[in-house]
Amino acid sequence: MAVRALWFRRGVLYLIDQRELPGRTVVRRLRRVEEVAEAIRTMTVRGAPAIGVAAAYGMVLAAKEAQKSPYRAAELLRKTRPTANDLFVGIETVRRVWEAGGDPLAAADAYRAKIVEECHRIGVAGAPLLMKCRHVLTHCNAGALATVEWGTALAPIRVARDLGANLFVWVDETRPLLQGARLTAWELDREKIPHAVIADNAAGHYLASGQVDAVVVGADRIAANGDFANKIGTYEKAVVARENGVPFYVAAPWSTFDARRASGASIPVEERAPDEVLELAGKRIAPLHSPAKNPAFDVTPAKYVTAFITPAGVVKPSGVAAAVKRSRAG
Amino acid sequence: MAVRALWFRRGVLYLIDQRELPGRTVVRRLRRVEEVAEAIRTMTVRGAPAIGVAAAYGMVLAAKEAQKSPYRAAELLRKTRPTANDLFVGIETVRRVWEAGGDPLAAADAYRAKIVEECHRIGVAGAPLLMKCRHVLTHCNAGALATVEWGTALAPIRVARDLGANLFVWVDETRPLLQGARLTAWELDREKIPHAVIADNAAGHYLASGQVDAVVVGADRIAANGDFANKIGTYEKAVVARENGVPFYVAAPWSTFDARRASGASIPVEERAPDEVLELAGKRIAPLHSPAKNPAFDVTPAKYVTAFITPAGVVKPSGVAAAVKRSRAG
Repeated sequence: MAVRALWFRRGVLYLIDQRELPGRTVVRRLRRVEEVAEAIRTMTVRGAPAIGVAAAYGMVLAAKEAQKSPYRAAELLRKTRPTANDLFVGIETVRRVWEAGGDPLAAADAYRAKIVEECHRIGVAGAPLLMKCRHVLTHCNAGALATVEWGTALAPIRVARDLGANLFVWVDETRPLLQGARLTAWELDREKIPHAVIADNAAGHYLASGQVDAVVVGADRIAANGDFANKIGTYEKAVVARENGVPFYVAAPWSTFDARRASGASIPVEERAPDEVLELAGKRIAPLHSPAKNPAFDVTPAKYVTAFITPAGVVKPSGVAAAVKRSRAG
Repeated sequence: MAVRALWFRRGVLYLIDQRELPGRTVVRRLRRVEEVAEAIRTMTVRGAPAIGVAAAYGMVLAAKEAQKSPYRAAELLRKTRPTANDLFVGIETVRRVWEAGGDPLAAADAYRAKIVEECHRIGVAGAPLLMKCRHVLTHCNAGALATVEWGTALAPIRVARDLGANLFVWVDETRPLLQGARLTAWELDREKIPHAVIADNAAGHYLASGQVDAVVVGADRIAANGDFANKIGTYEKAVVARENGVPFYVAAPWSTFDARRASGASIPVEERAPDEVLELAGKRIAPLHSPAKNPAFDVTPAKYVTAFITPAGVVKPSGVAAAVKRSRAG
């Protein structure tokens, strides 16, 4: 049964509370834009494409309140998290329609459908790269939960499996919030795709010992030159993959591409609360007076990327700017 | 106040239970070799030099029981953990004396004193490398807890600080067992050495953004060619350090060097229980049916090591075999 991260019905945005997985499947019902902003901020919903869609529906909820303006609603949602480009694309898509007097709900529905369709196309485009692989490594969760359906990194894995590939997935647990161990493992377990959870520290061991044939990750923002931001730790995996001659793929819909940004140097990296590092399952793990730093993302230079898996096919980093331009013309 | 991981008095081996830190400081009293073996296996005591010393005292406890043979006692202790060379050196040191009719306690005391003195010399030898550094990164715990006193990686940091260096230490939390967040942070906090705990995933971000001037780690086994085993994740840090031109130092006493092993290829890597990855603070973090893999160490090729910090000074990887030979002659 396919996973769906969120859906909208009769004025209510429903979303799976991703903080509760895999222990419990809790669906939250959001009726106000403030609730959507809070859900994004607290990572009740997370994953760049998914928060873009959630924010689009947040705009729909705002549009129902006479006292809300498109500008103020967009501001509220924009301030939740800085790194994922999709968030801003989702907000803008609905804001423009709302301001022009169009139907915000139709705009959000179309945006959601476009993301889902693009993720499916990413799966079809990327599957051929994985058909001969035995072991694939992924970091964080770039699955259905992160994208509404299909996923970005997980889409080619799903399609390749359906086409008969015999894939085993190494799942980086992805500290501090354990999106790999909690969410990616949950998706793979539901679909009986063979996998094993590993500490993030162990990825290098498997990469160096010939036990990884490809790395596939999602992205939060991709610059025109192919530099990209993704969950903290992605950069290390990319460097170690290249060092060992293992292909490194980045899968993303067009909403993740930020072609007006020349390089990764100016991508804003969110710094989250130190307690995400210092506490685990509500228990303090470090000494009481020890501080922590908690950058939520890192930026990986384009030179470590073998290819981007886009809705229009597989694209080299040097071809990103042109591919984005074509996607707009098309 | 200096930390001491373990001490022996009137037939009892006392050791700090490292599983309980930083929450509680619990001292265990061990009176039988079986208890020492169990403490090593369960990582009640851990760190290559420290488990070597604990095992040496385990031999002392065994020698008090008429029915124990040196061979059987050594076998019991040897089977606890496979990777750290020091364990086998500590056992053998006392076994030889016991078999020759000498005093096992005197042999173990001398072995402990030698390790402590070598760690101090490592501190003095390594401090000049760090005097001009602002930010140093370390992985796992290679402090007093891992070595009885001083530490290996932490010894140069302590000595440099005492000499006036203005050091800030990035502490990799070191999943799965969090020796960085729990133990290294505890040691640094006690001594008011400025530091911050980070998710292992974040080290690359700081290495790539010019916020790490040197990496210093300990080791569990060093081959003749300079390849070395250390806590899982060390390899990734070494690759990313070299990629960014950041010096990478490995600090170790002579007991960690295994010069009869030509390269790292044959170093045994311990695989520990999957539950160390799947559970945190007693709580399951992954789906019930998701498996995990849990290699406790990885092997870093010599080419990533800037230098080894030994009791006899700073040694390039190409000089390891000769340095080990000199240490025996000396």
